[in-house]
This record gives sequence, structure tokens and C-alpha cells, in this order.
Amino acid sequence: MDDPLAKLKNGTLKLYDLEKEMPPDEAVRVRRAYVEGETGADLAALGTYSIGIDRVVKRNIENMIGAVQVPVGVAGPLAVKGEYARGTYWLPLATTEGALVASANRGCSAITKAGGADVRIIKDGMTRAPVFAARDIVHAREIADWAVANTAKLAAAAELTTSRGKLLSITPYIVGTNVFLRCAYDTKDAMGMNMVTIATAEIANLVEAVTGARFIALSGNMCTDKKPAAINMIEGRGRSVVAGVHLSNDLIETVLKTDARTLAEVNYRKNLIGSVRAGALGSNAHAANIIAALYLACGQDIAHVVEGSSCITTIEATDDGGAYVAVTLPAVQVGTVGAGTVIDTQAACLSLLGVAGGGEPEGANAKAFAEIVAAGVLAGELSLLGALAAHHLARAHKELGRG
Amino acid sequence: MDDPLAKLKNGTLKLYDLEKEMPPDEAVRVRRAYVEGETGADLAALGTYSIGIDRVVKRNIENMIGAVQVPVGVAGPLAVKGEYARGTYWLPLATTEGALVASANRGCSAITKAGGADVRIIKDGMTRAPVFAARDIVHAREIADWAVANTAKLAAAAELTTSRGKLLSITPYIVGTNVFLRCAYDTKDAMGMNMVTIATAEIANLVEAVTGARFIALSGNMCTDKKPAAINMIEGRGRSVVAGVHLSNDLIETVLKTDARTLAEVNYRKNLIGSVRAGALGSNAHAANIIAALYLACGQDIAHVVEGSSCITTIEATDDGGAYVAVTLPAVQVGTVGAGTVIDTQAACLSLLGVAGGGEPEGANAKAFAEIVAAGVLAGELSLLGALAAHHLARAHKELGRG
Amino acid sequence: MDDPLAKLKNGTLKLYDLEKEMPPDEAVRVRRAYVEGETGADLAALGTYSIGIDRVVKRNIENMIGAVQVPVGVAGPLAVKGEYARGTYWLPLATTEGALVASANRGCSAITKAGGADVRIIKDGMTRAPVFAARDIVHAREIADWAVANTAKLAAAAELTTSRGKLLSITPYIVGTNVFLRCAYDTKDAMGMNMVTIATAEIANLVEAVTGARFIALSGNMCTDKKPAAINMIEGRGRSVVAGVHLSNDLIETVLKTDARTLAEVNYRKNLIGSVRAGALGSNAHAANIIAALYLACGQDIAHVVEGSSCITTIEATDDGGAYVAVTLPAVQVGTVGAGTVIDTQAACLSLLGVAGGGEPEGANAKAFAEIVAAGVLAGELSLLGALAAHHLARAHKELGRG
Amino acid sequence: MDDPLAKLKNGTLKLYDLEKEMPPDEAVRVRRAYVEGETGADLAALGTYSIGIDRVVKRNIENMIGAVQVPVGVAGPLAVKGEYARGTYWLPLATTEGALVASANRGCSAITKAGGADVRIIKDGMTRAPVFAARDIVHAREIADWAVANTAKLAAAAELTTSRGKLLSITPYIVGTNVFLRCAYDTKDAMGMNMVTIATAEIANLVEAVTGARFIALSGNMCTDKKPAAINMIEGRGRSVVAGVHLSNDLIETVLKTDARTLAEVNYRKNLIGSVRAGALGSNAHAANIIAALYLACGQDIAHVVEGSSCITTIEATDDGGAYVAVTLPAVQVGTVGAGTVIDTQAACLSLLGVAGGGEPEGANAKAFAEIVAAGVLAGELSLLGALAAHHLARAHKELGRG
Repeated sequence: MDDPLAKLKNGTLKLYDLEKEMPPDEAVRVRRAYVEGETGADLAALGTYSIGIDRVVKRNIENMIGAVQVPVGVAGPLAVKGEYARGTYWLPLATTEGALVASANRGCSAITKAGGADVRIIKDGMTRAPVFAARDIVHAREIADWAVANTAKLAAAAELTTSRGKLLSITPYIVGTNVFLRCAYDTKDAMGMNMVTIATAEIANLVEAVTGARFIALSGNMCTDKKPAAINMIEGRGRSVVAGVHLSNDLIETVLKTDARTLAEVNYRKNLIGSVRAGALGSNAHAANIIAALYLACGQDIAHVVEGSSCITTIEATDDGGAYVAVTLPAVQVGTVGAGTVIDTQAACLSLLGVAGGGEPEGANAKAFAEIVAAGVLAGELSLLGALAAHHLARAHKELGRG
Repeated sequence: MDDPLAKLKNGTLKLYDLEKEMPPDEAVRVRRAYVEGETGADLAALGTYSIGIDRVVKRNIENMIGAVQVPVGVAGPLAVKGEYARGTYWLPLATTEGALVASANRGCSAITKAGGADVRIIKDGMTRAPVFAARDIVHAREIADWAVANTAKLAAAAELTTSRGKLLSITPYIVGTNVFLRCAYDTKDAMGMNMVTIATAEIANLVEAVTGARFIALSGNMCTDKKPAAINMIEGRGRSVVAGVHLSNDLIETVLKTDARTLAEVNYRKNLIGSVRAGALGSNAHAANIIAALYLACGQDIAHVVEGSSCITTIEATDDGGAYVAVTLPAVQVGTVGAGTVIDTQAACLSLLGVAGGGEPEGANAKAFAEIVAAGVLAGELSLLGALAAHHLARAHKELGRG
Repeated sequence: MDDPLAKLKNGTLKLYDLEKEMPPDEAVRVRRAYVEGETGADLAALGTYSIGIDRVVKRNIENMIGAVQVPVGVAGPLAVKGEYARGTYWLPLATTEGALVASANRGCSAITKAGGADVRIIKDGMTRAPVFAARDIVHAREIADWAVANTAKLAAAAELTTSRGKLLSITPYIVGTNVFLRCAYDTKDAMGMNMVTIATAEIANLVEAVTGARFIALSGNMCTDKKPAAINMIEGRGRSVVAGVHLSNDLIETVLKTDARTLAEVNYRKNLIGSVRAGALGSNAHAANIIAALYLACGQDIAHVVEGSSCITTIEATDDGGAYVAVTLPAVQVGTVGAGTVIDTQAACLSLLGVAGGGEPEGANAKAFAEIVAAGVLAGELSLLGALAAHHLARAHKELGRG
Repeated sequence: MDDPLAKLKNGTLKLYDLEKEMPPDEAVRVRRAYVEGETGADLAALGTYSIGIDRVVKRNIENMIGAVQVPVGVAGPLAVKGEYARGTYWLPLATTEGALVASANRGCSAITKAGGADVRIIKDGMTRAPVFAARDIVHAREIADWAVANTAKLAAAAELTTSRGKLLSITPYIVGTNVFLRCAYDTKDAMGMNMVTIATAEIANLVEAVTGARFIALSGNMCTDKKPAAINMIEGRGRSVVAGVHLSNDLIETVLKTDARTLAEVNYRKNLIGSVRAGALGSNAHAANIIAALYLACGQDIAHVVEGSSCITTIEATDDGGAYVAVTLPAVQVGTVGAGTVIDTQAACLSLLGVAGGGEPEGANAKAFAEIVAAGVLAGELSLLGALAAHHLARAHKELGRG
């Protein structure tokens, strides 16, 4: 075609229609050139990428102008003793914050020297909670009662939309004329937000048709997706995972340069007391750092860092003078198929963990990944709490980071 | 040197010491090969990158094995009427979640057609809150009182560590024997976490030396960094920003395919009522999606998505039949210098917004960026709430995404 | 006996042993005299009471020195359309805050003129959640799994301790090595805290004996009793009740001196937006005032005002120009037998509502009382929101109250 | 007059007008008779009271039909080492929950044997936060800025309404078009809600007149009055008080029948971990029980139990094998003048504590009372945590209570 830039400028071609007119790599180049023209910015750096652009522009992004690159470091080896992840892992961490990988690495070292982290998934269910408007509170209870009584029927409708997802439960919540139906699904190896959104739309349509409820929105914020909410902390969302390790005082001294008692005191005064007074949800040092770096490397939805990083870190002195350290993560929303996991660089990171693609049986890979994530967060907590205990935080930042 | 891989395997060379033995690009290659050998994974995809690796390995990452690539799409033009950002912007959004850029784009269109979003920064202060142990509660109050009475002295000590940062205030919180001193700083164009951490270490040392307090940890979780906490929602952290726009009912119908009344009802039932019952902090539809995509594109710390996405979205019907829509973001932690902002691809995204590097006067670029972020979140909220209102969410996911 | 005062002073008689030495009314008098001697205070006013002191000193109080008197006013008539409470009620409100009864009265008038308040109980279960310590996180999950798998066996043990209570469910929550088992019971006409505490002790002992868990405390704070907690707001505790009424705009104008639109706006800006920014649990104007006054009059545990007042007030404009107003109270913990309900004056207040003692069938009286409480809170919300809407709050305080 | 009952029935006399027609005691009697006639209930028990009815019906209650009586027990002696309360106190506790006074008594014994509780007030300011509507977010910031810049002028207007109250600060919070001005006052010996409500009305009117803000409601829920809210936990409301005591292990064993280590473990697993997972505000065992019993006995507003019981209980093992136990109460709203404090029986309870009426200097009595309250809560926490530690809770309930 002749001069798409000119056509973009005179409005005869829409910016988002470029892929219809030319191959995707050219569309990206033209669009970038157009935006450069509009803003005067030099965006050449965005133009170097090696991901399978055909697939990406169809499924992962619109109006693409290039790609950002985020460096990936490894922390490990990390010994994990889960039910799905068993063995030694190298964690791919994508970050631009100096010192983070080094810190995680130290935590991995402590855990591995201690024989590895125990990890267990204690709940698994991805949720979507549409909201309906009732005529009055009497109607509201009728709607809720009907939905619960007809869960099997609603499950059948929901599951027609997905080959893998299974509806696990529907929990109703009423607030005045508002009815929320929190629908939980087993999403197997998928993180599952799209799957459960589509499936729940069927449920919502049926509820509306039968009960006379007005279907207001497919998400009524009691899901709760990408917002900090106690309901996720309490009831879980996605995979709820716990990881723990016992460290001898000797190991704490040699690897973390502090002692068990000081480590427990820092957790008590900082993570627990400080969080309570701050009105925090959860109680941890920096779960979000590890979650963000792992999610970004492995093609997860990084907006899920919000709930994914919900974490309670506990440290108890043990009778042998050591400490038992654990992290509880109620809302790890991860998948190994779909979404960003199929992009080449992200798929490589998942393969580094041995969890790329669908598992055997279905769900095993996503569960193994969730277990590794929890063990990684445990490593991060150990290292930062150790550093704080030794008053090393500022010095670490001076040497490795900058800001 | 001869065979670094062999030396890594036999332990005579440490994985994190590779950069001391060879140029960084070779160190990254060797490390990747080593990890491939350990795991059997093919990590070739991570090996293509174009960022200035010399600088990156010194400042942004350790144990680097390559880079992940995340596609960047643009949404815009977005008209912004802030005090620092005034004009029309193209938002760079790095994401792998299909439909997000298209959705943001629609929101930008609504705002721009309405004449642009008003944006104001209502507070600006980056915080760090060390925790101290007192002997008893009497001592605790003495420590707190001393710190407040000696703020000028503590500020002088803190500011010796930074050429730009200014201590704004010290707010004490006491819980039993625990004393937290929440120190707030003007960090100019930097996001400032490292700056305030280093500066606050000086304060903490002084407090310990003079008052006899035991300095427990440089962060006492009342900062609150990278954890959801009411203190940030209430008192703010980083830049507190509000953005708003008035939309006529006609504009809502043509761009968002719904009407003012339905839009307000969805916000009321979903964002407000649903969030309250869920025990949420804040009340919004998906601020985290826009925050995450902008932060990732522009070299921000993506773990800051946790607080950065704290948001209250409000929609009120107006007398003319339209609606006033606003987002309030109390904790936007952004910078345009340092950390990930100096990586080539991320710097390009900042330059696309005209806010790369230090501003004139100092701080102006970071403030402009914060204003653009808020306007971007407003666009995202408008579009998703509009889609929900029209029961279009599931369909949008079916067509553009997958999961 | 000779001179008990002298014996109290010389330590040969304990203050709490007086009832063993003399009739209760004399014991109260002597104890009061002793305390007067120790403090120089004149406590004569406490000495006038007409409640059945024999029963009270055995069951309701220790170290009694007299009684306080709190005036009781009535608000009504209030028309209630519940499933257990159907008819017109006069609410007994014990308070010393001028204007409260008058305000509630106005709300009752609005509701009754509108035909009465619909009320529904949407969940009913009193909870106790003991906490156990596990050896490690693997053990923690084993304990939780065992408890869930053996719910029937645990229920049998629990129900041996009570003639009326029924175990409804056990929900496990794990945090590191901590296992919480939230046990919910149908407590019939009792509020039930003592009943469920005793029953849950049996469960806890069994769990400890079989699983090797260390039984730490009978209440692990996930109950959650007498503390504000999202778990009660989300999952409920005691009776979860919703009440609602439709008011025409005409009724709002004549009784509340405002209009439907203003009323809804006040609720939106104050109760919803203000509560979200304040980091509140729930969203209401002053549910606690009505709850406190009703609980006190009717012999309830007034420390339960903490959760009992958890409330979300919703107001929506309706197509006819009126408004639908509702209150949602997830944690109304009330009973009509036992505890303070048997004291003469409190029993009279329950009889005023027609709900004194055990119901037919069991539980019907406590449920009816819970419904009346919700309708009363609705009256209180209506009146205060109306007053605020008309900027009348300050004037009302000037005229009726003082402070 | 002739037959008021007949006139009430035929509507020629209003129930709330009885006091205009006859002496108050007769009005109460007639009203009670009328309500008995309407409901068939026997309310004779409410008719025995000895409080100064003339004053009560004018200031504390409307539509009075009698009084409830609540038994008062004493716990003590309790040694308190505050700045305002120094000495030994007997706590008047009004409750109907068996075992509570005995439990508090045991806590007092432990504290007093340990030499008394240290207590400090760390902040003092009663708040009211009106909400205003702005035209848009630009206007919102203008309103907030104007209020802060004109605090002196607003203080002058506010203080015209009160002879004692002083405005301490105005803190603005913006959410979209909503502006909240949290006004804090020194209310001297008054609890002060009415005082600050009336004073803040002046501020609100001025803000509206000058800025063009629409004054929506005198309370915008950021006060936050009688609702659980993080803003009170973080910033305090009324008197913020901390109390602490060091107990030797010997004392813990002899009085509390447990040991320092177990006591600390129960607090850690139950109060801290359990509360975090429950999404609680604060972290304590049963502060509400003591607060409720003291507030009720001493004529405080019992709806203030909601925030008054906000409490963080901390226990740390000390090097000598003992424990330091503290309670932090950020929102103790108490007064010794006005409201319920003037009723005879309640005034007697205040005089028992030596804090009835106005203090010397002004405010000293209310502050002393706040200190005693905190020490009382400390006693309650010690006793219940000790009982839980020894697995004694259920047994204690079996023996002393019932329900």
C-alpha cells in the first residue's frame, strides 16, 4: 500500500487497523514511526525483539509499537519439597532493582542448606463474582437461595464454555439489594481469569433469566481481582500455598549473619506489629518483590502482583535454638498455559523451572509453579529479614542499588 | 580464562563472580549456558537483547542470564490537563493480556473527546519508617518525643546522604514498646526508595545513639512499602494524585455504549458496595492493570503495583445528564531518573511521554509522569466500567484475549 | 459474724468471699462500704436496685457493689415484616445520649408509614476458632485435613456438652505452623458464646489428642469475638440480617425533611466514599448507637456492639422518584435466654418485644429479636442520614443533647 | 389533666409530649402504662429507679419509660503510674457476663503485685470530619488548600461556640469531588462529640460560604465515629493511650498459672497471627469487655466501645525470664463531664475513681480516666491470655458463667 503514515495522519487508516493492511512486524514498525512523528520521541530501542510477533499481536497486545526488555537473573539452586515441585530449581527473576536477585540468592542458599523448603497447596479455586440487583431484600435472598439450590444446573451451563474448567462452588453474599455470587473454579494449568469470566457469564445470564435479577456486572469486586481485599486473604483465590523451613541457629549465623532470636524479633516487631498498626492486609517484608520478578519472567499477569503478594510471614524460635520460618500465600494466581506464558522469552523461563505448558495430570504444572513461587517468596523473606536484622539494608542498597 | 563452565561446576568459580572474570555479555552467556546445563532447559530466547548491558549488570541486576521481552502497545492520544503534564500523550503499555491496550485506548478516546482529564497532585512525600524497641512504654514516648523535637537535627543528618532529597516530616507511632518513625521526603524526580532508605538509616542511628532505643529494622512496615496498607490509602505515599473528567451522556453513549446512569450504577454496586463487603482497601475496577502496564514500560519498580494501584473510583451523575468520573490514587510511587528508567527500552517509553530524566525544575518530570499515570488509570476505569455496564466483558475476552 | 469490714481490712476475709458469709444483699452492702472506706467515695447511689440479687450474684457478676441505672426510652411503633418478627413493635432503647431516642423514633415513623421494613436472616451460625501449633507446615495441613474429614466425629463430641447447640461446619485456616478451626454452631435462642466455647473445647482436645497438634488457645481470634474483623463482615457471625424499605419521595419530604436524591447522595459521599478512604470495615452512619441501646436494654453482651454494629447501609434512587434503603448486618449476636436476659429489667424489655425466653420452635425468639434489631438499625440510619441531609445534625445536638 | 392514656390512644396527646403536661416521674409512668397497654407486656421492673429524673428527661433521654439496672462489680486494687492517674484504684465494672469481674480482678492483682502499670497518653484530639462536594477535582484541591491556609480563621469561628474546646488541626482528604476536613480538638474534660460537632458546623458553613463547596454532611465518616476504621487505629481519636507492665516469670506462674514463654506464644499465635488472617483492625484478646464494662459504669457513650476497644496487645519475653506486656489504645473517647456522667449512679462510679467532674487543670480528670481505662484493659488482657494459656477458658465459663 502507499504511504500508510500519510493515511494514518489524514485519518483514512486507523492506528489499530495496521495489522489488517500489512504483516505484523511492518505494522509495528509503521505504528512506531507514526507515534515517533506525533511525539518527536526516538523509540528505536523498542524495535529490537525476538518474540513470535504473529502470535503476540493476535493474542497478547493491541497497537503494538515494540517491546521492552527486562533483565533476568537467576537465584538458586533452591531445594523444594512440594507435592508437585520436588527437586532443585533455579529461579528466573526479571527485575531492574539492583540487589534483589542477590538477596533472593542468599535466601535460596539458606533454604537449600537446610534441606529444602516444605510446600503445600491448601486450597485451589479461581473466582469470579458477578453482581446482580434485586428489587428488594426479599428478592435478594430468593436470588441467592436459587443460585445455591441450582448449583449443578449452573455448573453445567458454565462448563459448556470450557474444556478444562470445573465449577467448584457458588457462595452468595447479599448487601441490601445487591447479590454477589462468588463462583470458584478448578482451572487446571491455566491461571484462568478469562476461562472463569466466560463461564461465569453463562451463570449470570441464567440467574438473570430465571430469577428476574438485574445482572449488573460480571465482576462485582468480591472476586476480588487485582485489588487488595480481605476476602482473598481469608478465603483464598487461585492457589493458596504455604511454604516453611527449619533453620538451625548455626545456619542463620553463617548464611544470614544474624541469630534465630533476632530474626524472630524483627519479624515480630516489623512484620506483625508494624503491619497491624498500619492497617495492612497481611504481614510480610517484601513478598511483592519476588512475586513481581517471577511473574514477569514467567509470563504471568503482573497486575496479579497485588493479590499474589498477599503474604503472612511467620517465624518461631524452636527448642533447638533455631527457627521455623514460613510464608502463607492465600492468593497465588498462576498458570503455565495461555496468556503471556506462550511468548518465547517467558516460555523459556517456565521451561527453566520445568513447568512450561500443560501438566500431567492437568493442573500439575501450574500447581508445581505455585509451589516454587511460595518457596521463592520464602527465600526472599529470609534474606531481607536477615539483612534488616543485621542493620545491613542501607549498606546493601548503597553497594548494589542506587536511586 | 579456560573453561569457566568447568570451574563453575567444580566450584572454583562462583556464578555471581563471572562479571569479574570476563566482559558482561560473555558472563551472561556463560551463566546462561551453565544454568541450561544444570536444568536441561533451552534458554536461547533470553539471549537476544539490546539494552546497555554494561550498565545493567552493575546497577539493575545480578546473576543475569538474559532478558525477557514484553510487547508494548500504545493507547492515545490522551489529553491531560495537569499542572506538570499539559498536552496530549500516547501511553506506552507493556502487557501480555490481550484487550487491555484496546480497552485503555477507548478510555483515552472518551477523555480526549471530553476535552481532557483534569489532574492534580495533592500530596508528595516518599516514606520510610524504621522501628525501634524501647525498654518500656515510658521510654517509648520519650523516644518519640525526642525525635519530633529534634526533627531539624535529624533532617540535617539525613540530607547529608543525598544531594536532592529533603526530609519533610517525621511522624511517630507507638505500639507498646515499639516506636515507628515515619519519615517523609521530597525525592524530586526519583521514585526515591533507595534515597530515603539511606537517609533514614542516618536518622535511625542518631535516634539509637541519643535515646537508647534499640534500632530493630530500617523498615518497620509502617512505610508501607509494597504491601497493601490503610496508612498509604489514608496518608499517601509517593505522589497522591487525583484525576477527573466530565462526560456528557451523549459521549458516554457514543464511545462507551452505555449511559451516565448505568455507568454510575455499576460503579456504585460493583466498585463501592462489592469492595466494602469484600473488605477491600480502595474501590476501583482495574487500576492495577494500567499501573502495571505503565510501570513496566517505563522502568518503574513493578512491585510498586501493590500500592500504586490503590485507587478509589467515583462516578456521580451531573445535572446535565452526564457524569463526573474521577480516580484518586494516594500512593503513586514513580520516578524518571535512576533504577529501571535508564534501561534503553524503558527510557524510550519515558521519552514517548516527554518525561525522561530529570525535570526543570527538579521533580517536574516525576510529577508530570504521576499526572499522566492518573489520567491513564482514569481511561482504564472508564473503559472497563463502560464494558461491564454493557455486559460486554465476556465477549471482549472471547474476541481479543484467551485464557 | 462480727464486723466483716474489720476482717476485710485485716485480710482474714477476702472481698470475693463475702457471699459465702452472708446473704447477697448484705454482701453487696458490706463490699460497697469497704470500697467506700478505701476510696472515700460516696457510692450510695449504687445501692438502690430491684433486680433479683440472688440469681445475679451467682451468674452475672462477681464482687458486686450495686447497680447502675440507665434510662430507657421507647421508639415506635415500628412495623416489621420479617419471617419471625411480624407486626408492630416498640423498641426499648437504653441510652444516656440525648436525641438518640427521638431520632430513632422519627426513623420508625418513616418505616411504619411506608408499610414496614422487610427483614430476612441470611445466615445463622455462632463461631469459635481455636488455634493449634503444628510441627511444620506439612503437619499443619494434616491437622486441617483430619479435622475436616472427621467433622461428624467432632460434632458428636461437641454436642455432648450442650442440649441445644448443633455444630454446622468446621472451616480450617492455616498460617505457617498455625491451624485455626472456625467452628460454627446453631445456638437456637441463646447468643451462644459460652455454649460454643465449651463445645469447641471438646473438639480442640480431640484434635490435639489425635493429630499431635499443640492446642494453643480456645480462641484464636478468627472467631472473631468482640474485635472488628473482615471475616465477620464477609462470612458473618451469629445472625446475618438484612432489612430494607422503600420510601416514596413524598414520605422522605414529609418525615425526613429532605428528598430521595439528597438522601442517596449523603449515603454515597459520607457512608461509602468516606468509609473507603478511612479504611473502615463496613459503611454506615451510626448503627452502633441503635445496637448499643437495644443490646443494653435487652440484656445482651454490650461488648458485642463491636461486631453487632458491622453494617453496610445502601440507598438507591428508584424509578418512581423514591428511594430503597437497606441495612446489612452480618454479625448480630443476640439471644433471648441466658446471660443478662434473665435480669428483671432486661427481661421486661425483651417481653416488650414479645421475645423473652425460649421460642417456639427453638430459636424463633432469638431470630425474631435479630430481625427487630435490624429494623431498628434501619430506622436509626434513615433518621440520621435524613438529619445530615438537611444539615440538621448540629442543631439537633444543641437542642436535645449537650456535651 | 383527665386521662392522658385515653388522649394518647385517641391521638390528641403525643407520646413525647407527656413531659409538657405533667411532672417527669408521672410522665414516665403514664408512658410506660401506655406501652404496656399497646403490647401487653409487664414493664413494672423498669419502674424502680433512683436517678434524678428531672435532669435525665431533659438531657439524656426522650420517651422515657423507666430504667434498666446493670450490676456493678469491683476489680482491684489496681496500681496505676500514669501522669494524671497515680495511685491505687478500684475499677467499677458494669456487666452481666459472669466471670468478667473475677478475671479483671486477677489481672489487677498481677499488675499491682508487679508494682503497677505505667501509662502514657501519646495523643489527644477529638475529631469531626465534614464532607463537601466540589464541582470537579480542581475545585476539590482549592477547597482543601483554602481550609488549610485559613485554619486560624476557621478555629476562631469554631471556638466561638465553645467555652472550653480548642481546634488543634484540620487535615484535608480528597476523593474525587469529595473533600473531607478532619478537624481535631482538645475537648478538655468532655468526651466532646457534641462540642466538636457544633464547632465544626461553623467551620463547615464558612468553608461552604467562601469556597463554593457544597456542604454535604457534618460527618463524612472520616471522623470516624462509632465505626471500626483504620484511620482511628493509625491517627488516633480522642485519647491515644499506652499502658505496660513488666511481670517476672515467678509472678506469671503464681498469679496467672502459666509462664512467660507460653504467655508470649499465645499472644503471638492468637492475637497477632489470628487477627492478621481474620482481616482484623487491631490485635487483642478482649479489650472490648473491659471497655464496655467501664464505659457503662461510668456514664460513657457505650456505642464508643466500637473504637474505644481498638487495641494492640503486645507481649515480649525479657532477658530476666519474665515478660513485658502492653496495650495500645489509639481511640479512647472518654469524658468526666456531661452526657451520662451526670446521672447519679454513673457519677458515683466516676467518684469511685476520683475523676468525677471537671479536673484541675481542665482536662486532668478525663486524662486520668483514660489512663485508668488503659490500665484496666491491660489487666483484662493479662488475665484472659493467662487463662487461655492454661487452657482454662472453658472451665472458667462452666463454673462462673452460663449461656
